[in-house]
Amino acid sequence: MTYPGAPSPETLALLAAEFGPDLLTDPASLDARGRDDSGLLMPPAAVLLAKNAEQVARLLRLANARRFAVIPRGAGTGLAGGCLAETGGVVLDMSAMNRIIAIDADSVTATVEPGVLTGDLRRAAKSKGLFYPPDPASLDVSTIGGNAATNAGGPACVKYGTTRDYVLGLAAVLPTGEAVRVGTATRKGVVGYDLTRLLVGSEGTLGVITELTLKLLPHPAGQACVAAVFADVGAAMRAIIGVMTRGHLPSAMEFLDARCLRLVGDLLPAHVRAGLPGAPGEHGEALVLIECDGTASETAAAITDIEALCRELGALGILPAPDEAAREAAWVVRRSVSTRIHESCAVYIPEDIAVPIGEIAKMVAALPAVAKRHGIAIYAFGHAGDGNIHLNLTAPDEAERPAVEAAAEECVRLALALGGTMSGEHGVGLAKRRMLPLEIAPVSLRLQRGIKKLFDPNNILNPGKIFPEEA
Amino acid sequence: MTYPGAPSPETLALLAAEFGPDLLTDPASLDARGRDDSGLLMPPAAVLLAKNAEQVARLLRLANARRFAVIPRGAGTGLAGGCLAETGGVVLDMSAMNRIIAIDADSVTATVEPGVLTGDLRRAAKSKGLFYPPDPASLDVSTIGGNAATNAGGPACVKYGTTRDYVLGLAAVLPTGEAVRVGTATRKGVVGYDLTRLLVGSEGTLGVITELTLKLLPHPAGQACVAAVFADVGAAMRAIIGVMTRGHLPSAMEFLDARCLRLVGDLLPAHVRAGLPGAPGEHGEALVLIECDGTASETAAAITDIEALCRELGALGILPAPDEAAREAAWVVRRSVSTRIHESCAVYIPEDIAVPIGEIAKMVAALPAVAKRHGIAIYAFGHAGDGNIHLNLTAPDEAERPAVEAAAEECVRLALALGGTMSGEHGVGLAKRRMLPLEIAPVSLRLQRGIKKLFDPNNILNPGKIFPEEA
Repeated sequence: MTYPGAPSPETLALLAAEFGPDLLTDPASLDARGRDDSGLLMPPAAVLLAKNAEQVARLLRLANARRFAVIPRGAGTGLAGGCLAETGGVVLDMSAMNRIIAIDADSVTATVEPGVLTGDLRRAAKSKGLFYPPDPASLDVSTIGGNAATNAGGPACVKYGTTRDYVLGLAAVLPTGEAVRVGTATRKGVVGYDLTRLLVGSEGTLGVITELTLKLLPHPAGQACVAAVFADVGAAMRAIIGVMTRGHLPSAMEFLDARCLRLVGDLLPAHVRAGLPGAPGEHGEALVLIECDGTASETAAAITDIEALCRELGALGILPAPDEAAREAAWVVRRSVSTRIHESCAVYIPEDIAVPIGEIAKMVAALPAVAKRHGIAIYAFGHAGDGNIHLNLTAPDEAERPAVEAAAEECVRLALALGGTMSGEHGVGLAKRRMLPLEIAPVSLRLQRGIKKLFDPNNILNPGKIFPEEA
Repeated sequence: MTYPGAPSPETLALLAAEFGPDLLTDPASLDARGRDDSGLLMPPAAVLLAKNAEQVARLLRLANARRFAVIPRGAGTGLAGGCLAETGGVVLDMSAMNRIIAIDADSVTATVEPGVLTGDLRRAAKSKGLFYPPDPASLDVSTIGGNAATNAGGPACVKYGTTRDYVLGLAAVLPTGEAVRVGTATRKGVVGYDLTRLLVGSEGTLGVITELTLKLLPHPAGQACVAAVFADVGAAMRAIIGVMTRGHLPSAMEFLDARCLRLVGDLLPAHVRAGLPGAPGEHGEALVLIECDGTASETAAAITDIEALCRELGALGILPAPDEAAREAAWVVRRSVSTRIHESCAVYIPEDIAVPIGEIAKMVAALPAVAKRHGIAIYAFGHAGDGNIHLNLTAPDEAERPAVEAAAEECVRLALALGGTMSGEHGVGLAKRRMLPLEIAPVSLRLQRGIKKLFDPNNILNPGKIFPEEA
């Protein structure tokens, strides 16, 4: 089948008349909305910088009448190309619809437009003693609408879940141009099918979110963390699992493998490095970072327990972080990994497989052989508490890209064989759709395609994303 | 349209030959599976007591070939008639598929068959230091498959969410008889549409769940609670909201209104009753019960804070519950409400509307006028932390049933006007489907009917539930 693509010149003229200055066609605007963090460039024919839901509906009705593609977009921080105009078409930029409509402290909810930055929402909630927990790494620059469209998550998933768990209800415009409200403004609701969570995570293929009602929580009074170095990822994971089966529910449990640790180990304080085995720059084989939140006395007690447990389970070195400065120093180690990997190599493919927590050690242990077989390097780090491992597959030279891609597919197959999934956070977009049939069985794929057709009979909304082209 | 109903006598003979002793047709079995907790009786033509997923698939293939209704059922504790054979047909009793396949302490997940009692799952998890949080009132007698089909929840929702938040993945048989696996075995997963949460809460109309992979949490070390009496529900809700906006996330926040409190106030300890205003049996106008979980020091500190906050916000009497016996005594007050209401009246309709937390006081304040207008009594109690209010509408005489029903619909309309939903826990089934269009707009209803048709083209699985008959 062929997908709808760019509007004809006459249609483009019609759109310009219809939307006036909100329709952007200058090269800089098209170029800016032709990118996301996948590194790809696919400029659209035009951009509608939407100011309200009515404009969204008008654009989608025109797209159906005249069969062109509409590609919704938040801040474009996705890594899978999900918001790129692959077939041409009109990018629907939702970033200007960025009002925080209400932080309702009595109902402990927020009502926001989709273009609100997730970090801004978190700050607005905090100012009323409330907490919006999902924490994708991009939270200071990504939008809540994009977070919902991709069901974004981060380190906090282990305790708090992902975006999906906080979206109570939505207003959306369907691909047909009809406005719809789904879900509730309440924390419980069991009336009819769960269209809210069908739209959440659908990567902008089933509807355009124009408003969200979000569950908030009480804001925890504080946080405390501890980092520990172990001899290998197996030992690190035994500590992670030990913490969880002895009654602690940390708000983050992150890990770095040996290769990452060699890359950023110099950021560990000297007194921690000094206690570790190995040559300078080779400080143990796995770092674990565990954070707890709650009142000061709660977090202090929890961290003391967890530190003791880490020692009991073989930690080679402990980096306590009792105050905010030490906590920030520990997180700098974790956060610097991506940047340093990125800086260190020409070819870089970020995979984000997830496996059951109990299989993390097996997954990580299998990586050196994969890397060796393909002559590349693989860095593994991520979310030990939820099984989501960021695999950064790299090579120093562009000529090795096919080897890196082959290794990436091998890693995905390995994760699936361990009961995992090919993506814990990034989504499918266009980057992973050729691999979709590895994970999704034909009967499930048929239902999913049926849902797409039910919502979008002319396939005008973000066509070609998620699903491989039908034979 | 007419729905598929009972199998013909020839088909019934075929089923008997196909399934042998697993097909039940004796009157006692049909009568037992013709009931749920709605009080209705709708005996099926036969019952298949399924032993495995292959039998489920065979039954559904036959139902499509010969156009009879199949009605899946767990323990039958639903209050909305969702598992009753309204059009006749074959009840598919899943209660014998009740193996706990695995409690995986390394991955902090459980894999179970649908007939496992929720209480048994909770105990099995606890024995490994793990916790399955959803706590519908029926948990000792209801099945996890039924809980998933109805997205069951209870008091723990305020902190832990509902069943939906714990179902990572499912095996199901589609109405067409095809087996499918949806979701993941991991805590994060963003590949394709969320069919898991489409099946969860679909009240057995989109598929028959044959296996569930569930997220578990670390088991909290202990619990502590406090109960407080306030002058009215408004004051009680100010305390509830005050607790949540000052950093506490209790594991339960329950309330009883004045009428409930008069019914069970005698269960309060004498020293608490003595401190309260009003005549004997009239002890304040609202009771709040707040429970926290965590380590002993965490819960003790939290309860001390919360008790002080309740006093500051006008509590007339406080019932501390520092130990297990006192805690149980406090919960007895809460749990006795339903039983005493049930015992005290001939006509009894349980509604379970939910409203935003900030609207609870307004909702409860409006009830006396509704009750007076219809000449009936309305008791309100439930989950202050999530807005789900159990309204028990009662009258002493069967002749007053129409008045009770009219008042129930008025309460639903009131909840919807306050931004709420007609059901927080019970679901639609057949009890509320005539009211569905009050809450679900035509465009959403069209999509939901489209999804039903996509999954179940011949409408053989639990026909007629949730959706009102099309004109």
